[in-house]
Amino acid sequence: MAEPLFQFLLRMGDNTLVLGHRVSEWCGHAPVLEEDIALANTALDLIGLSLMWLGLAGEVEGQGRSADDLAMLRDAWDFRNVLLVEQPNGDFGQTILRQYLFDAWHDLMLAGLRDSTEPRVAEIAEKASKEVRYHLERSAETVIGLGDGTDESHARMQAALDLLWPFVGEMLAPDDLDRALAAAGVAPDLEVLASAYHQTVRTVITDATLEIHADPLAHSGGKSGTRHSEHLGHILSQMQWLQRAYPGATW
Amino acid sequence: MAEPLFQFLLRMGDNTLVLGHRVSEWCGHAPVLEEDIALANTALDLIGLSLMWLGLAGEVEGQGRSADDLAMLRDAWDFRNVLLVEQPNGDFGQTILRQYLFDAWHDLMLAGLRDSTEPRVAEIAEKASKEVRYHLERSAETVIGLGDGTDESHARMQAALDLLWPFVGEMLAPDDLDRALAAAGVAPDLEVLASAYHQTVRTVITDATLEIHADPLAHSGGKSGTRHSEHLGHILSQMQWLQRAYPGATW
Repeated sequence: MAEPLFQFLLRMGDNTLVLGHRVSEWCGHAPVLEEDIALANTALDLIGLSLMWLGLAGEVEGQGRSADDLAMLRDAWDFRNVLLVEQPNGDFGQTILRQYLFDAWHDLMLAGLRDSTEPRVAEIAEKASKEVRYHLERSAETVIGLGDGTDESHARMQAALDLLWPFVGEMLAPDDLDRALAAAGVAPDLEVLASAYHQTVRTVITDATLEIHADPLAHSGGKSGTRHSEHLGHILSQMQWLQRAYPGATW
Repeated sequence: MAEPLFQFLLRMGDNTLVLGHRVSEWCGHAPVLEEDIALANTALDLIGLSLMWLGLAGEVEGQGRSADDLAMLRDAWDFRNVLLVEQPNGDFGQTILRQYLFDAWHDLMLAGLRDSTEPRVAEIAEKASKEVRYHLERSAETVIGLGDGTDESHARMQAALDLLWPFVGEMLAPDDLDRALAAAGVAPDLEVLASAYHQTVRTVITDATLEIHADPLAHSGGKSGTRHSEHLGHILSQMQWLQRAYPGATW
């Protein structure tokens, strides 16, 4: 079970790392100060979760790689995040919708992982779930506020939904790895999760007066590592430059 | 004379390297295919010149550093390019105006360097000057066409000029290094060059129906390396990532 567990932990840790990096790009640029601070805090939470997931991944792998090594010294093809989280920030509405679509999945995933047969996974999920519950409340409220807001904000949120919905399916469609982990009781059954996800998300989308037009499973290949979008390489070049230029740097 | 010459060669090579990188960012994104190809060719010319200037810089330094080492393994504080060339692309008009303001300086500088008392400098200048003359003709014509074009293109070019003119002075104002090199006959006298620059550039600006509002010497610190803009670090993280991640990689 070590190799599938390692891959699964990379998926969890890479999702939060890449999304955390994306959200951190807003620091100093958000439309109002409160949102700027909220986004920076969200980014820090997500990167903090990566430290736990990737730390455990390194332990499970047993080759002496730390969370920092995994974050900073792998190349794009070894990342296992879903494509949704590497998509560009766009405007504030697009960022918040991406956040909501991820948070809704993340919250359900962590709820399932709290019952994991792997105690170290259950422990991280327990710690993570309170923070992520708060992320979800906040992003859901903001999606509703902006979707059911002015004509301008509604139009932008609808455009963001049309753009991002095709990335949702990858989080929800189980592959062989997901099935093996679910069978072992390590991770929840994604098909059950998907049904809860659609119910929750469609309620929020409706409250936000938005409409789903696109097929949810249009873009995939991120969590399997077979096909990342062009954005991931740019994210890594920014994120990893310091550790690449000054290997092992500390302060 | 080795250390001042080394610094001067870094200035020449870093100007073309950083501007070449900036211009290369347009590849695949320019407004029409012909401009896309023209910009990509300009970028290649500039990067090719960097190979010559930085190659000579490495020889003069005498510590075994190649042009690639100097381009890919120095950090921001060791770059000696003027701040103009690291400014963002903005829209196509802003890119073309930045190019013109640099080309006009570059053409005069190379004309002076063809008479350098340092034969290796004169030789590179001789090779470079034909390419750069063509860059200058092209960017000058495009600045005039866009400035004296539609209301929209005129307004964009005027905005670009207001933004970029404060970066012009750094190319023209001599510091101690420039004076020492001019006294040794290695490089032209910048005050003489500045007078020719203002005459040429003001004619083009007038033909483009644009107006100079800002003080030319408002931003400096790039060629001395004391103060680069925030943009340089981002440029280097993109440009250097591969050599940092895979040191000495060849293909």
